[in-house]
Amino acid sequence: MKLIIINGPNLNLLGSREPSVYGKEFFEDYLEKLRKWFPDIQIDFFQSNIEGELISKIHETGFSYQGIILNAGGYTHTSVALADAILAVTTPVVEVHISNIFAREDFRHHSLIGPNCAGCVSGFGLDSYRLAVQSFLKKE
Amino acid sequence: MKLIIINGPNLNLLGSREPSVYGKEFFEDYLEKLRKWFPDIQIDFFQSNIEGELISKIHETGFSYQGIILNAGGYTHTSVALADAILAVTTPVVEVHISNIFAREDFRHHSLIGPNCAGCVSGFGLDSYRLAVQSFLKKE
Amino acid sequence: MKLIIINGPNLNLLGSREPSVYGKEFFEDYLEKLRKWFPDIQIDFFQSNIEGELISKIHETGFSYQGIILNAGGYTHTSVALADAILAVTTPVVEVHISNIFAREDFRHHSLIGPNCAGCVSGFGLDSYRLAVQSFLKKE
Amino acid sequence: MKLIIINGPNLNLLGSREPSVYGKEFFEDYLEKLRKWFPDIQIDFFQSNIEGELISKIHETGFSYQGIILNAGGYTHTSVALADAILAVTTPVVEVHISNIFAREDFRHHSLIGPNCAGCVSGFGLDSYRLAVQSFLKKE
Amino acid sequence: MKLIIINGPNLNLLGSREPSVYGKEFFEDYLEKLRKWFPDIQIDFFQSNIEGELISKIHETGFSYQGIILNAGGYTHTSVALADAILAVTTPVVEVHISNIFAREDFRHHSLIGPNCAGCVSGFGLDSYRLAVQSFLKKE
Amino acid sequence: MKLIIINGPNLNLLGSREPSVYGKEFFEDYLEKLRKWFPDIQIDFFQSNIEGELISKIHETGFSYQGIILNAGGYTHTSVALADAILAVTTPVVEVHISNIFAREDFRHHSLIGPNCAGCVSGFGLDSYRLAVQSFLKKE
Amino acid sequence: MKLIIINGPNLNLLGSREPSVYGKEFFEDYLEKLRKWFPDIQIDFFQSNIEGELISKIHETGFSYQGIILNAGGYTHTSVALADAILAVTTPVVEVHISNIFAREDFRHHSLIGPNCAGCVSGFGLDSYRLAVQSFLKKE
Amino acid sequence: MKLIIINGPNLNLLGSREPSVYGKEFFEDYLEKLRKWFPDIQIDFFQSNIEGELISKIHETGFSYQGIILNAGGYTHTSVALADAILAVTTPVVEVHISNIFAREDFRHHSLIGPNCAGCVSGFGLDSYRLAVQSFLKKE
Amino acid sequence: MKLIIINGPNLNLLGSREPSVYGKEFFEDYLEKLRKWFPDIQIDFFQSNIEGELISKIHETGFSYQGIILNAGGYTHTSVALADAILAVTTPVVEVHISNIFAREDFRHHSLIGPNCAGCVSGFGLDSYRLAVQSFLKKE
Amino acid sequence: MKLIIINGPNLNLLGSREPSVYGKEFFEDYLEKLRKWFPDIQIDFFQSNIEGELISKIHETGFSYQGIILNAGGYTHTSVALADAILAVTTPVVEVHISNIFAREDFRHHSLIGPNCAGCVSGFGLDSYRLAVQSFLKKE
Amino acid sequence: MKLIIINGPNLNLLGSREPSVYGKEFFEDYLEKLRKWFPDIQIDFFQSNIEGELISKIHETGFSYQGIILNAGGYTHTSVALADAILAVTTPVVEVHISNIFAREDFRHHSLIGPNCAGCVSGFGLDSYRLAVQSFLKKE
Amino acid sequence: MKLIIINGPNLNLLGSREPSVYGKEFFEDYLEKLRKWFPDIQIDFFQSNIEGELISKIHETGFSYQGIILNAGGYTHTSVALADAILAVTTPVVEVHISNIFAREDFRHHSLIGPNCAGCVSGFGLDSYRLAVQSFLKKE
Repeated sequence: MKLIIINGPNLNLLGSREPSVYGKEFFEDYLEKLRKWFPDIQIDFFQSNIEGELISKIHETGFSYQGIILNAGGYTHTSVALADAILAVTTPVVEVHISNIFAREDFRHHSLIGPNCAGCVSGFGLDSYRLAVQSFLKKE
Repeated sequence: MKLIIINGPNLNLLGSREPSVYGKEFFEDYLEKLRKWFPDIQIDFFQSNIEGELISKIHETGFSYQGIILNAGGYTHTSVALADAILAVTTPVVEVHISNIFAREDFRHHSLIGPNCAGCVSGFGLDSYRLAVQSFLKKE
Repeated sequence: MKLIIINGPNLNLLGSREPSVYGKEFFEDYLEKLRKWFPDIQIDFFQSNIEGELISKIHETGFSYQGIILNAGGYTHTSVALADAILAVTTPVVEVHISNIFAREDFRHHSLIGPNCAGCVSGFGLDSYRLAVQSFLKKE
Repeated sequence: MKLIIINGPNLNLLGSREPSVYGKEFFEDYLEKLRKWFPDIQIDFFQSNIEGELISKIHETGFSYQGIILNAGGYTHTSVALADAILAVTTPVVEVHISNIFAREDFRHHSLIGPNCAGCVSGFGLDSYRLAVQSFLKKE
Repeated sequence: MKLIIINGPNLNLLGSREPSVYGKEFFEDYLEKLRKWFPDIQIDFFQSNIEGELISKIHETGFSYQGIILNAGGYTHTSVALADAILAVTTPVVEVHISNIFAREDFRHHSLIGPNCAGCVSGFGLDSYRLAVQSFLKKE
Repeated sequence: MKLIIINGPNLNLLGSREPSVYGKEFFEDYLEKLRKWFPDIQIDFFQSNIEGELISKIHETGFSYQGIILNAGGYTHTSVALADAILAVTTPVVEVHISNIFAREDFRHHSLIGPNCAGCVSGFGLDSYRLAVQSFLKKE
Repeated sequence: MKLIIINGPNLNLLGSREPSVYGKEFFEDYLEKLRKWFPDIQIDFFQSNIEGELISKIHETGFSYQGIILNAGGYTHTSVALADAILAVTTPVVEVHISNIFAREDFRHHSLIGPNCAGCVSGFGLDSYRLAVQSFLKKE
Repeated sequence: MKLIIINGPNLNLLGSREPSVYGKEFFEDYLEKLRKWFPDIQIDFFQSNIEGELISKIHETGFSYQGIILNAGGYTHTSVALADAILAVTTPVVEVHISNIFAREDFRHHSLIGPNCAGCVSGFGLDSYRLAVQSFLKKE
Repeated sequence: MKLIIINGPNLNLLGSREPSVYGKEFFEDYLEKLRKWFPDIQIDFFQSNIEGELISKIHETGFSYQGIILNAGGYTHTSVALADAILAVTTPVVEVHISNIFAREDFRHHSLIGPNCAGCVSGFGLDSYRLAVQSFLKKE
Repeated sequence: MKLIIINGPNLNLLGSREPSVYGKEFFEDYLEKLRKWFPDIQIDFFQSNIEGELISKIHETGFSYQGIILNAGGYTHTSVALADAILAVTTPVVEVHISNIFAREDFRHHSLIGPNCAGCVSGFGLDSYRLAVQSFLKKE
Repeated sequence: MKLIIINGPNLNLLGSREPSVYGKEFFEDYLEKLRKWFPDIQIDFFQSNIEGELISKIHETGFSYQGIILNAGGYTHTSVALADAILAVTTPVVEVHISNIFAREDFRHHSLIGPNCAGCVSGFGLDSYRLAVQSFLKKE
Repeated sequence: MKLIIINGPNLNLLGSREPSVYGKEFFEDYLEKLRKWFPDIQIDFFQSNIEGELISKIHETGFSYQGIILNAGGYTHTSVALADAILAVTTPVVEVHISNIFAREDFRHHSLIGPNCAGCVSGFGLDSYRLAVQSFLKKE
């Protein structure tokens, strides 16, 4: 199984940015743990602050990967183009948020990409990514 | 560890109700599987169509359980009282939805209980409950 | 043919409550007349002030009765859960209002249950119930 | 007893227009049945696509008929002038809709003429007209 | 000087329609008085319930008359087409209302034609027409 | 007959303020003309930039004068207190505007004092005051 | 004199729930004090988390008690049915809030039951109940 | 191929009406050119200021013509009835605007008929009609 | 203990202004009673129709008095400046209304000063002032 | 004549993306046809998923080309910066949409770039581009 | 060069009022510094809590001073009359705020006077006044 | 002291773009002046039309520079991601606008980045940048 985690704007600063909201762990360290917990899954990673590069990456992986785990950061609430990209590909996309977006400012309560995603995990800190990976491991 | 799943209105009909949206599995069957997957966790269960009984159950378990997994159904979008109940207790509450509420009618896009919950898992079918249980198993 | 009339909150006070709006007749007396006018139909009756009990009654009758005549009172305008219940069953539900809800306060102009009902009769006083029963007697 | 059915814009196409929403029966055929079901009532009929002609017909019949059954079509949602006409006459007007307007587009949820009508019947197909006629036959 | 009074929908019923709001005087009687008070002015008159006929009459008189006195009735609040007609002609149009539209329902507070009129007189009963005529008699 | 014209904020600058909107005539000069045109009426005058002084003047004259002609300037759109003052007195108040407030910025389209006034004259330049005086001279 | 205090959802947790907002005193202890301060008044008490049970209790006491003191908790902002219940009875109802609802979240600023109550006391902590009792003791 | 151009209210004044917005050419002159440019197409023409007549013309041509080119003028923004008419017929309707409606007043930004049309051409002056005709000539 | 009652615009007319809403008693007479009922409290009084004078009085007394009882009249709903004044001082301010503002026009439902006040008493007629005084007498 | 077609985000997927909405033809194939139909016009082409690159391309061509044909995709509804770019250049820009944006989701009904474009063609599938090219060929 | 600083309501309390928001410095002390920093400029000063007095001061200085530096306090967000006063004079007015109004409550985000001012400086504490003075010293 | 000016989309066209709004001076020329006026400050400069590149530049300089002067152009009103970037760094950011954004279109009145900036200077033409630099030179 081949998954990709796509992180949007400002998420390159995780660990140093507003630690009270986003925690103190660097994403690279967390990613290492994640790969250890799921040794059978190939977990690729991409980050960009540029909306159009996120769209292009979704195009690139959206027909061949089994899943995309997308934390679109601030673009979650403003990007119709990103939402269209999710609709345009066949790979299911799981929306992820580190913080509980419903407990923050009003403009963070509405997700433009939400309606086009397969599901959403939010509010569990970096652990939201682990749960998103879990979601692709359907148990019987 | 002791968790409780609290299901709100109409969720007693799971399996027979709108199968295209909610799936064909009876919740009782799913619960059995869930308990098998997590043999070390006590997973209690409560369902009611009555808003006030859901509130009372949160009061009753909200100081002694390690976690509450709450699918408040239609009350998600209308109940200030339920949201207050979550705030009033000390046990963390994880909000769960079977369907992707952001892909449905407008009035389902806003969760009144969301801001008071620890996190939210939605859109994975009954599997949302498994992920919610997983969220209480913080890995290191 | 088996129909059930389900009355919501405050409708137990019909006859004594705001007679200028709702009239002076007790519902029990009217029900008796109704049964006399339609001797070939079994017309059951249920009233509750509790939203969740109305939901449960819809579940209970919503797969075996030919029709449900529902006056949801104040819950008409606030209950997503009740609207979901109507969607969850197979029996057609006819929405009934004694007063003309469009001629009253703004918050009464919008019915949350309306979109899920088969039809709506409002503004004819208690006579709205008679018309609702009539609606199940399709003439050819 | 003398009633008039007044049909607004596009209702001249009943039978051929969007049969999945409005059915396949021509209104003239239905009218014939209606007159047969209520042999003691004179049921007149008027249709126009022109808002002002509907207003004039309400003026003309609104002081001498016992009842007006009005399906204002698209003008239901936009015509203050039609609403004023209903207020200006003394004959009670019953609002009728073939489809359940609450289950359709948002702009059909609000009736400008509703507050001035005696009552409303909607969602029963052409049968809505039969119920409207019934509403003028108060039983004791 | 040549003026025309153009009255919109339902104003043909003045005198009989809602006398508590619009008074008991027939417009024809008032018009006679008006002509007596202003013997040097030719005051023409037109009434129609049909929006398009009001538009056509504005076109017809809007390049040759010195003034148009327009009571557009219910179309005041809904007709972009009528507002466009006023903009399309060169004769100044004075908006007139018998009742004080600001003291009535919310939907009467906004005039679509207002921005295109030269001025507005409202709330003085039929006397609003006299003041409108006066407005064309600039004193020095 | 005793009338008072009450002018609100910035109207002391008439003649020098934005002449393209309000004209070039000083109000004092116009007032003189007005008194000449209506020699039988005592026309008093008051201007203040202070909301509370306008209220006090309405209290002072609102039980003994036959009419108040009020141009509340910018307070028209923001002052609940001024609207309450008009309701609190027995003298009828006529609202006056020099410019056509409906043809200007959105925030000028709504008058808070309008619902409590007897009538409104707007858009005729200073001539709006003459028409307002005329409105107190009911002709028979 | 016979009064009843009716407390809504979550108010059973007073003393333990969010003490920074609602204080640390148990309602039972406060009630005892209240009865001591007003020895001549019979002060009954009822609490429920169930909307419909609050409605039923208002029906039960609303024709025989001299006053109802109602703290509807979260239902204050969402329950049309409760508002209707207050309108349906003859006993005056005084709305009470422990915290200043206007200084909290936006959704707490609007009270659906407010328009039907005799008066409102809010923001004085548990002391709001004492003032509500005082309101029934009209001094001369 | 048989097309019809249907022009709505005030478009009879093209050439004389607000030339800075709509140009100086008479529609009749332009129509002649249009017919010369497309000699193989029968281009019929209808204009009315009356909403209901536009509806009737759509009914009349909407089952036999290959295309309807509709400039509904002011009714574009207010007429549900016209929108319904387009839905009721089988001929595709192309919406046309002379001016760029998005660069004008807010109330012109929303087209009620738009969702039911096949496509829209706006902002090219009278040339919008030529492009609309072109749209029916699918090239391969 | 030293309290001050500050009354805003139009409250100088109490007793003569809209008696059906505000009662027939003059405030001076009521104030006398109030002082008799609470002989141990110095109750000062100030009234002004001028927003800025109310602000100045709050500044003047807001650091030395034990309490301010403020009925801001119409400024309740429009004055950010008054709300800021309450925040700027240290004396607690209790908001008072004679009528039940929630049962009146929509624009009276929202209090700009409410969030900054210690508490609110409304709807008890002049008796609201007595309850406000009571609120400063914390019982033990 | 030199035109450029600028395509925004996700339009690189045309042919494979949601064929029911956007058709099955690859844009490159269509472009070839287009160039064949208009052999006398140089039709350049640019596509990017990055908002800022679209802006830069408009700057680059916006002073020397005769026309820009812009399909801004999802940025149509969210990009003030793109709208500003159109205003900043002198070349006229024609807005193009493949689908009828008015018949889709609400957030697609409003175009931020529309007010700054010369005209708009939408809903004709890829044929919208041909009509846009036609718009630059003014016939006499 | 002659400038005037006009301070609105509650700004007389600077230094003592909410020091965490507005700082601890008295405005008089700051003014002294300001005059020392700009010895070549005459900097006059006026403060009032009364809206109308601010308007009058703008009238008084608005034709002879080189600049007005206006901190309208709470009236910034509510006063159409003040905005009109700025428009009525010829001296350019610079809007100043001590705190960053965009980082505070919603109702402080919108400035009614902003559109009529030459420019705005906000969020730099008392230093905003120094920058405003600087703005009148155009460097070359 | 080390400052950086970051200019957003379309600002590369300053001098040629809409000179009536933005002036005729090229930014490079102005920057030279600015550096001459403040010889002791290192003033770096960056411009991009790409939102994500602006974010990256803020990350790059936001921990080491003393100040960022940001003119985000059109992204001011639409970019949550940019606002998040400002929050994520420790260097204070001053928002700058050349034109008075409050005197322009409605969608320019709201700044998404404003709440996270230290202060804002707008409306002084290019001089806004000089004032922004001044703001970092706190005088004593």
